[in-house]
Amino acid sequence: MFLHDVAELVGGQLDHATPETVVTGVNTLEQAREDQASFLANLRYKTKFEASHAGVVFLAGEIFPEAVRPIIRVADPYLAFALLQRHFNPDQRSDGLRHVSAVIDATARLAGNVDIGPLAIIGGNVHIGPGSRIGAGCIVEDGASIGESCIMHSRAVLGASCELGNNVILQSGAVIGSDGFGYAWTGHEHLKIPQTGRVLLEDGVEIGANTCIDRGAIGDTVIGRGVKLDNLIHIGHNVKIGAYSIMAGQVGISGSTVVGRGCQFGGQVGTAGHLRIGDGCKIAGQSGVIGDLEAGGTYAGMPAVPHRLWLKVSAIMLRLPEWWKRFGNRAGKRES
Amino acid sequence: MFLHDVAELVGGQLDHATPETVVTGVNTLEQAREDQASFLANLRYKTKFEASHAGVVFLAGEIFPEAVRPIIRVADPYLAFALLQRHFNPDQRSDGLRHVSAVIDATARLAGNVDIGPLAIIGGNVHIGPGSRIGAGCIVEDGASIGESCIMHSRAVLGASCELGNNVILQSGAVIGSDGFGYAWTGHEHLKIPQTGRVLLEDGVEIGANTCIDRGAIGDTVIGRGVKLDNLIHIGHNVKIGAYSIMAGQVGISGSTVVGRGCQFGGQVGTAGHLRIGDGCKIAGQSGVIGDLEAGGTYAGMPAVPHRLWLKVSAIMLRLPEWWKRFGNRAGKRES
Amino acid sequence: MFLHDVAELVGGQLDHATPETVVTGVNTLEQAREDQASFLANLRYKTKFEASHAGVVFLAGEIFPEAVRPIIRVADPYLAFALLQRHFNPDQRSDGLRHVSAVIDATARLAGNVDIGPLAIIGGNVHIGPGSRIGAGCIVEDGASIGESCIMHSRAVLGASCELGNNVILQSGAVIGSDGFGYAWTGHEHLKIPQTGRVLLEDGVEIGANTCIDRGAIGDTVIGRGVKLDNLIHIGHNVKIGAYSIMAGQVGISGSTVVGRGCQFGGQVGTAGHLRIGDGCKIAGQSGVIGDLEAGGTYAGMPAVPHRLWLKVSAIMLRLPEWWKRFGNRAGKRES
Repeated sequence: MFLHDVAELVGGQLDHATPETVVTGVNTLEQAREDQASFLANLRYKTKFEASHAGVVFLAGEIFPEAVRPIIRVADPYLAFALLQRHFNPDQRSDGLRHVSAVIDATARLAGNVDIGPLAIIGGNVHIGPGSRIGAGCIVEDGASIGESCIMHSRAVLGASCELGNNVILQSGAVIGSDGFGYAWTGHEHLKIPQTGRVLLEDGVEIGANTCIDRGAIGDTVIGRGVKLDNLIHIGHNVKIGAYSIMAGQVGISGSTVVGRGCQFGGQVGTAGHLRIGDGCKIAGQSGVIGDLEAGGTYAGMPAVPHRLWLKVSAIMLRLPEWWKRFGNRAGKRES
Repeated sequence: MFLHDVAELVGGQLDHATPETVVTGVNTLEQAREDQASFLANLRYKTKFEASHAGVVFLAGEIFPEAVRPIIRVADPYLAFALLQRHFNPDQRSDGLRHVSAVIDATARLAGNVDIGPLAIIGGNVHIGPGSRIGAGCIVEDGASIGESCIMHSRAVLGASCELGNNVILQSGAVIGSDGFGYAWTGHEHLKIPQTGRVLLEDGVEIGANTCIDRGAIGDTVIGRGVKLDNLIHIGHNVKIGAYSIMAGQVGISGSTVVGRGCQFGGQVGTAGHLRIGDGCKIAGQSGVIGDLEAGGTYAGMPAVPHRLWLKVSAIMLRLPEWWKRFGNRAGKRES
Repeated sequence: MFLHDVAELVGGQLDHATPETVVTGVNTLEQAREDQASFLANLRYKTKFEASHAGVVFLAGEIFPEAVRPIIRVADPYLAFALLQRHFNPDQRSDGLRHVSAVIDATARLAGNVDIGPLAIIGGNVHIGPGSRIGAGCIVEDGASIGESCIMHSRAVLGASCELGNNVILQSGAVIGSDGFGYAWTGHEHLKIPQTGRVLLEDGVEIGANTCIDRGAIGDTVIGRGVKLDNLIHIGHNVKIGAYSIMAGQVGISGSTVVGRGCQFGGQVGTAGHLRIGDGCKIAGQSGVIGDLEAGGTYAGMPAVPHRLWLKVSAIMLRLPEWWKRFGNRAGKRES
């Protein structure tokens, strides 16, 4: 791709660069060759930038004005890198190939160009929209529906009656629509309550490997538009996750909790059930959320509290031993 | 179902209700239509109760004696709701259907009415009892046995020689009988120790999606009668879990730990190995159990301590910054 | 096996033992019969040792010199037990059996004695080396390669272009090569960044059930020689784990973090991304690592700090309520 086309793709300005220079891919600053583009998003990597052999580097705004190497100046170097990487690695198109070993129910309705991989199973009355690709060993249970241009990676499971919108991606081993964890104690055993709801994944959702999303007890579990969930996440029954929220690996959201739009959860966060977490909350990794959280806040710890408070508490906790040594004893003396 | 039959099913008393009224299902208070039943278990939802269109509501005992809407008075409204929901959503019966694509070893012995789903794999010398349903893509390895009326959901795995009792449910992706994590350090590498035990799941056990239960190193890993394990749980080799214990998502129990009967573990709890956790222990979410726990206690935190103590400690920790500001400096002055 | 051969296998000395005694297996001290060997590694089990019916017991060095039962004295009883258990339970040999139901691409190149289980899927241009066994329902995607004497248990997934060295074991449900969690925020959505790297597992690696290892964004995620990962672990894109490190269940390592050689991570540990964890670090269960860690240290807590400090902090924290009661109020009085 010519540099001037790259600049146009990413909405950037060439600087010290020959527009006809060809770029064939992207790479990290350390690994990039002269025919590759790279990016610098964090000034502490300045040394890597200077040492890099990249043919062109995306930089933010006006930093390093003195640089005499090819640069494309953009508002967001990381985004520019992403746009170029997507250009060089476009999604495969579906070809309408159905592997002979796939088991496809006669009542399933598949758009013409849907790909079905080897040993995939498509159940009764399943709908699959144009451009979608169902990978090897996937299971789409009865009554489920899949929108356009979705991708199910090897061995993902879409449970009965559950729905994927358009452009949804399920990574390998994801389970959509397992039974919610619902029991009533009879006095001598846990009686299983049928889970009659579904799971709905809106457009643009991506679900990580081996992540599990339970169907609702009554009514549905809903994952909003553009949400991204990493691997090994647990979503309980009747949870609602607002659009564009993003959660790192091994998060657990207990049943009936409602998460707002645009939230960011670090890895291994856990939340109790029946909570309301407001829009735009940021929750640090390993936090334990046991009460409602106001919109726009940043939280950490167990129990989860405003991040600033947690930083102070943590700092003081680490000083307690020295302080206890000096002062803890005096408390004893003063009593006498 | 007529209301008088509902009352009989749940062992309740009609109040302000016409016995011949028909109920067709259950729903939440907010969603229920006039032909549906609902329940109120928590008085803080009184407003929802008053606004509900439900044809009848299960209430506990004598609360709201002034109510003039149809009510069925029961000891436990949530249990009554569960019983009615089960009535309207009975388990599917198995029909003895074996999908042509299933791979069933000639030495496997299956009761006549066992269902085997598409692309399921039944290994050598496997026994499966009457009424059991093996879902799409499930794998039952050599020598495993399954009791009566069990359900394996899509893609569950029952490992070699492992055993399910009666009425056991495995959700999608569950793995029963992976190798325990056993190695001996030789001085330069971790030498794998063959894991020769099995996993035994007693009657009425339910295992969540993508949950993993390791086979014993020598001797078995045993999950007791009526235990319910949620999704993404890790059970190490030679663990014993007592009857009717229940654990929420992403719990991890290290090898050889013995958990008593009737315990309740919140989500993301972790326990060390070789511990004894007494009967009836309740452990708050995210706790870290690193020593034996006495029966009947309620525990929280890391390290896990009696819940009351943890509440006090947590409350004080959050006040440390204000206190440190006022007092932390004085400690310095007094020294001089 | 004759005792004198056992002693030779484990490099030990017979004591009070008849060299021609036959041993048929190993067992725990409590369960062992007279034709079985056992071991004592921890002196607090002395009572079990004395009560045991084991035909011979591995003991360390010179402990219990007065014992008059058959003993084999070794440097490391647990290792001796492991060696003997491996002798009695050798790995199955592969036989070159390909199940008729397996789907094997015509371009795949498999060594002659490779086993392929029922309904396994072998993709285009896959290489599999001699002695390897691919279990039921496994999926080996296009371009992946597998070395010698590897084992993929039921339903494991090896993603496109990913590589296993020799003697690698994947437990059931493991996913190698899911997309890394890479997105760029455009201002209104998370834009997916193609993950173009691979996963490389070096010789002797073992991956637990349902564990997920993401492929690199650019460049590879590498798991070093002899590393052992337990179940339900999450490894983010571009992580490097040094040789012989070992991690218990449900650990989570965020992207681009580099873990040194010979580290030991307890269960449910979480680390942030882009960190460097030095060789030989030991990290207690449930710790949260949010900064680089120096080699050779032992760490605990969230945030993870030197273990000794964490022990002191934890001990003081549990005394805060009593101390606050006595002293917290005085702070108030002194102010006045």
